[in-house]
Amino acid sequence: MVDKNFYVVKENVTLAQVAEVTSAVLQDEAKAGETIDSIATMASATANDICFFYDRKSKEKAAEVKAKACVTTAELAAFLPEGVIKLISENPKIAFIKLNEYMYAEKMPTAGIDATAKIAPSAKIGQNCFIGAHVVIGDNAVIGDGCRIGANTVIEHDCRIGNGVRIENNASIAYAVIGDGCYIYSGARIGQDGFGFQMMGGQHHRIPQLGRVIIGNDVEIGANACVDRGALDDTVIGDGSRIDNLVQIAHNDKLGRGCVIVAQVGIAGSCTLGDYVVLGGQVGLADHLNIGSGAQIAAQSGAMRDVEAGAVVMGSPCVPFKDFMRQVAFLQKNSKK
Amino acid sequence: MVDKNFYVVKENVTLAQVAEVTSAVLQDEAKAGETIDSIATMASATANDICFFYDRKSKEKAAEVKAKACVTTAELAAFLPEGVIKLISENPKIAFIKLNEYMYAEKMPTAGIDATAKIAPSAKIGQNCFIGAHVVIGDNAVIGDGCRIGANTVIEHDCRIGNGVRIENNASIAYAVIGDGCYIYSGARIGQDGFGFQMMGGQHHRIPQLGRVIIGNDVEIGANACVDRGALDDTVIGDGSRIDNLVQIAHNDKLGRGCVIVAQVGIAGSCTLGDYVVLGGQVGLADHLNIGSGAQIAAQSGAMRDVEAGAVVMGSPCVPFKDFMRQVAFLQKNSKK
Amino acid sequence: MVDKNFYVVKENVTLAQVAEVTSAVLQDEAKAGETIDSIATMASATANDICFFYDRKSKEKAAEVKAKACVTTAELAAFLPEGVIKLISENPKIAFIKLNEYMYAEKMPTAGIDATAKIAPSAKIGQNCFIGAHVVIGDNAVIGDGCRIGANTVIEHDCRIGNGVRIENNASIAYAVIGDGCYIYSGARIGQDGFGFQMMGGQHHRIPQLGRVIIGNDVEIGANACVDRGALDDTVIGDGSRIDNLVQIAHNDKLGRGCVIVAQVGIAGSCTLGDYVVLGGQVGLADHLNIGSGAQIAAQSGAMRDVEAGAVVMGSPCVPFKDFMRQVAFLQKNSKK
Repeated sequence: MVDKNFYVVKENVTLAQVAEVTSAVLQDEAKAGETIDSIATMASATANDICFFYDRKSKEKAAEVKAKACVTTAELAAFLPEGVIKLISENPKIAFIKLNEYMYAEKMPTAGIDATAKIAPSAKIGQNCFIGAHVVIGDNAVIGDGCRIGANTVIEHDCRIGNGVRIENNASIAYAVIGDGCYIYSGARIGQDGFGFQMMGGQHHRIPQLGRVIIGNDVEIGANACVDRGALDDTVIGDGSRIDNLVQIAHNDKLGRGCVIVAQVGIAGSCTLGDYVVLGGQVGLADHLNIGSGAQIAAQSGAMRDVEAGAVVMGSPCVPFKDFMRQVAFLQKNSKK
Repeated sequence: MVDKNFYVVKENVTLAQVAEVTSAVLQDEAKAGETIDSIATMASATANDICFFYDRKSKEKAAEVKAKACVTTAELAAFLPEGVIKLISENPKIAFIKLNEYMYAEKMPTAGIDATAKIAPSAKIGQNCFIGAHVVIGDNAVIGDGCRIGANTVIEHDCRIGNGVRIENNASIAYAVIGDGCYIYSGARIGQDGFGFQMMGGQHHRIPQLGRVIIGNDVEIGANACVDRGALDDTVIGDGSRIDNLVQIAHNDKLGRGCVIVAQVGIAGSCTLGDYVVLGGQVGLADHLNIGSGAQIAAQSGAMRDVEAGAVVMGSPCVPFKDFMRQVAFLQKNSKK
Repeated sequence: MVDKNFYVVKENVTLAQVAEVTSAVLQDEAKAGETIDSIATMASATANDICFFYDRKSKEKAAEVKAKACVTTAELAAFLPEGVIKLISENPKIAFIKLNEYMYAEKMPTAGIDATAKIAPSAKIGQNCFIGAHVVIGDNAVIGDGCRIGANTVIEHDCRIGNGVRIENNASIAYAVIGDGCYIYSGARIGQDGFGFQMMGGQHHRIPQLGRVIIGNDVEIGANACVDRGALDDTVIGDGSRIDNLVQIAHNDKLGRGCVIVAQVGIAGSCTLGDYVVLGGQVGLADHLNIGSGAQIAAQSGAMRDVEAGAVVMGSPCVPFKDFMRQVAFLQKNSKK
């Protein structure tokens, strides 16, 4: 049950409203006036709750559902107890998301600039922004309309940030151009020097890092994730990409659109990812690789060579998924002899 | 030798005091009035130092110990030079901890709220708290007695924090209920959105994350570690658990009591860990796994399936420890043919 | 092309100046007065650009270079179009670095202490330092000359920081002694308690962590990296070492000079690394290991035993590089039978 202390909660929602919001069909129209107070999981839902049933693996537990109502498919509805009011949906998971968005919201801060924020006189802040306490915004930075910048975040000189961008607290942004609708989480570090050295006179001499980080629209960068700026070129994150917590993206990496990079992935420098690439948690990529569009690399895998578009690979070094499973089986079987 | 610049140091400690504090028995009572000034390692201890000898692997080096005194077991005492004053303990490691706690302490800041902290009028701060510079505490947050909140840390609206909690600097806490006696390190990120998306109209549409993070009593969360809040349920960390630096804990994970999660571990969403589970450094768990109480997963291993209580496993994908060692040996031997 | 919004850029640089700065020899002295405006990659350089050609793998693309001028070796020059003005260098990569340093610079903040910084009266700040907004510096801390401390960074009591040290924003420094010329990136956490517990009465009792972090001269610590302080001894990072983002260095680790530790490496406690050790991304080391000088451990590898000086190893557990490749080939071949 969603905690009303933390979230804005709409209660007394009628099943007619649920049907409208979710595009689901109420099986028994006589129940349209019945109300629910909250969304719950199938296992925990009780008398005033609604739940959603779309995972076929939950079929066995469906008979025990105690919710007042349940949004499910025509097929899965048969597994629910008779007493549960059914709403039939073609896609109950999307219905779930829509009802969540209708019934719940985060408490958003009022627009305004906190008195303790330190904003350079040459910086431009758009309309209706929230700028939190102790935020620092450098010379000539440009922040679009409707942005929300959390407390103690630092945005360095000349950064350009689009409209509707949410940056949480304690983050650091430098040398970055960020599109619209992005969500940067707490502690993310964007735009620091890439890790490049040349041995000169017995010392690791730093190679100047003179590029930028270019982030498209609707991108998420997770908590404590790091995106280094380019060396001479830019580091680029394509529209709609999702980067999870604690990910490392090195200088000159180019990610296409809609990539999903799960927690703790490390991408070495100058890699190019196509569109909708998926990297499972803790994956590592060597430098200068090309990973084709739609490729999926399983968690903990390591790629030392290019991966073709659409390939599904696993292992360190990674091989096609079936080969990996065959290797695992071979080793398991033969090592016991 | 402990640096007196950084720590509060008690010197001129008599061996009688050492015996009392550590419950050790001084072999030669005539030495009860002798004093030591510091604790040192066996290798570095000199004339005014005391050292502790409990690691059997150090037997060979014991003859070279130059400390004034040494706390050790009755058995190991025989390996020390005659001139070293011996204190006999059943558990010299615990004796070591106790003498450390007696002789040394961190310099603690005086209770008080820094003038630069920004605390919402509706927030409640307990007795005897230290609230550092530029701390931000949101609406309706409740902080217990005797807490210490480091500089530049942000605690968002409605969080509830128990008594005696220490939160270091530059941390971010949101949507969290934290028990007593916890220790949250610098840069930890607690309560951000979990990583959940649904493809809708060709876009990764965010699934609302409406849960909380529930942290028990006496929990540690390491520096720059991330604990995402639940999606609809909560993310839960049981009493007494220890989470190291740079760990990723995803939405809806439930950790039991006394778990030890070493640095850089990544736990995907909706995993359940029993009590006293140990995950070595850089371990990865796939989502929705059950890891039974007392299970131990060796460093860098990856689990794709449930792990039974008490199991000791290794590898990626992980197998019982003995099987893993057999696989390693098999591969080593046969690949050389 | 370097973005003039972000960087200080020198344009109209004559090829005579380029030759002087890079120690390259202009093939056609008649071109000494020609100017270039920017450095670009071989692929993107156009009419007013200079590029650098030192990677033999780029030979095939060299014929398509459209730059006005190119710094390259006597041998590689033959692959470039006739119209491109050549400057011959024994080491074009070092020439590249030198011209970068000559033509470009970061915009550095003016020295001065921001009015919002909270500096303990007993702290000492050297000459010509920049101390950013909301920085916190504790009692008795000593900051050398020419340091740059970014916004919202916290330096705890008694830390000693050398000359010319750059610490970026939102970092946390405690119990640390730092040499000259170091560069600490945003969000780095230095000096927190190591991860040490002893089971006492069914609880994980914290072992007091009473050491320091000693960092040599010319060391880099990456964004969101963590370096725990020692337990009784110190954690030590040798001169000239380079530590990338999100690295974990545990208590009592000792790194020699010039080590290169790539992103997301985890080094467990009490390891000793010689000089110029290279650990690839995501490497893990078990505790108490000795890694000899010049050893190289490939990305994602895991070491459970000591590694000899100069060894090149790979795998988890790691083996000599050739053995690893043989294992991979053996498994690939035999699992398909």
